[in-house]
Amino acid sequence: MTRKPHPLAKVYGLIEPGPVVLVTTARAGRSNVMTLSWHTMLEFEPARVGCVVSDRNYSFETLKMTKECVINIPTVEMAATVVDCGNTTGASIDKFQKFGLTALPASEVGPPLIKECFANLECRVADMTMVPKYCLFVLEVVKAWIDPTVMDPRTLHHLGNGEFMVAGERIKLNSKMK
Amino acid sequence: MTRKPHPLAKVYGLIEPGPVVLVTTARAGRSNVMTLSWHTMLEFEPARVGCVVSDRNYSFETLKMTKECVINIPTVEMAATVVDCGNTTGASIDKFQKFGLTALPASEVGPPLIKECFANLECRVADMTMVPKYCLFVLEVVKAWIDPTVMDPRTLHHLGNGEFMVAGERIKLNSKMK
Repeated sequence: MTRKPHPLAKVYGLIEPGPVVLVTTARAGRSNVMTLSWHTMLEFEPARVGCVVSDRNYSFETLKMTKECVINIPTVEMAATVVDCGNTTGASIDKFQKFGLTALPASEVGPPLIKECFANLECRVADMTMVPKYCLFVLEVVKAWIDPTVMDPRTLHHLGNGEFMVAGERIKLNSKMK
Repeated sequence: MTRKPHPLAKVYGLIEPGPVVLVTTARAGRSNVMTLSWHTMLEFEPARVGCVVSDRNYSFETLKMTKECVINIPTVEMAATVVDCGNTTGASIDKFQKFGLTALPASEVGPPLIKECFANLECRVADMTMVPKYCLFVLEVVKAWIDPTVMDPRTLHHLGNGEFMVAGERIKLNSKMK
């Protein structure tokens, strides 16, 4: 087990590149997972992420009620699971069991981390004023974890209709940008 | 010149994967460009995009005042320009001239398209209620253009501090997800 705390000030580097994420929620002792690509950083510190969770999703009511979730970032090895979680609803199945995901306890929130993901961001809902109009939840990351042995995570980036771009090479330029 | 209109209903496939974008604005006959990674889709149709434009950016006041911009999507060949536009301010230089960018007239809005980018989304500001708190502008894409000869755009995805992931291979899975 190599999962280590990741500085909250560096969370933006995980979200900014735009990976597909798996969001876990939990209520009444039962956890659920949804696939999500509509997210953006909103602030470096505190690390705030805006996430669109459609009110057609089973996770919507849970997130609204419990105000907690975990953003888990999968890599290409989990592509089938990402699609499976997007194609099904937690209203009728237990996705952890059905898709062989391992739930690890979070340290600050109720919903679990997904062990198979290389990064996990424990979040609390900080603002729901944009939920009625845009289903946009403002999340504050309260604890972040990363598997430091994954040097070059091959994240998935959704192009639509089940087509994904897989993270390619990295380049470094001289920049003053954070 | 192979630029062609792109269906607004397909715009999400350009934004969802999370590329770095170059946002053009214009006022008093002068155009400006900023580099931006903090964006998310908010709605499929009308195609709405949420963009965080910091109030420390020169483009902030222009966007607030004119309520128009163009989201231009660059590929890896433009990496140096992406960083140059992020490292400088339109308050003191003309970035189009300085960095050799070609401005093409938009059809629906004042700010120009960047010819060197493979996709251009003409936008109007639809909602500024989240600007005071989060610098988050809700944009509605009113016209989209794409260069159909660019089959596999090698977009840039910012990891922080001038490090970028370059779009890699594409995979297709059987999915019911839009």
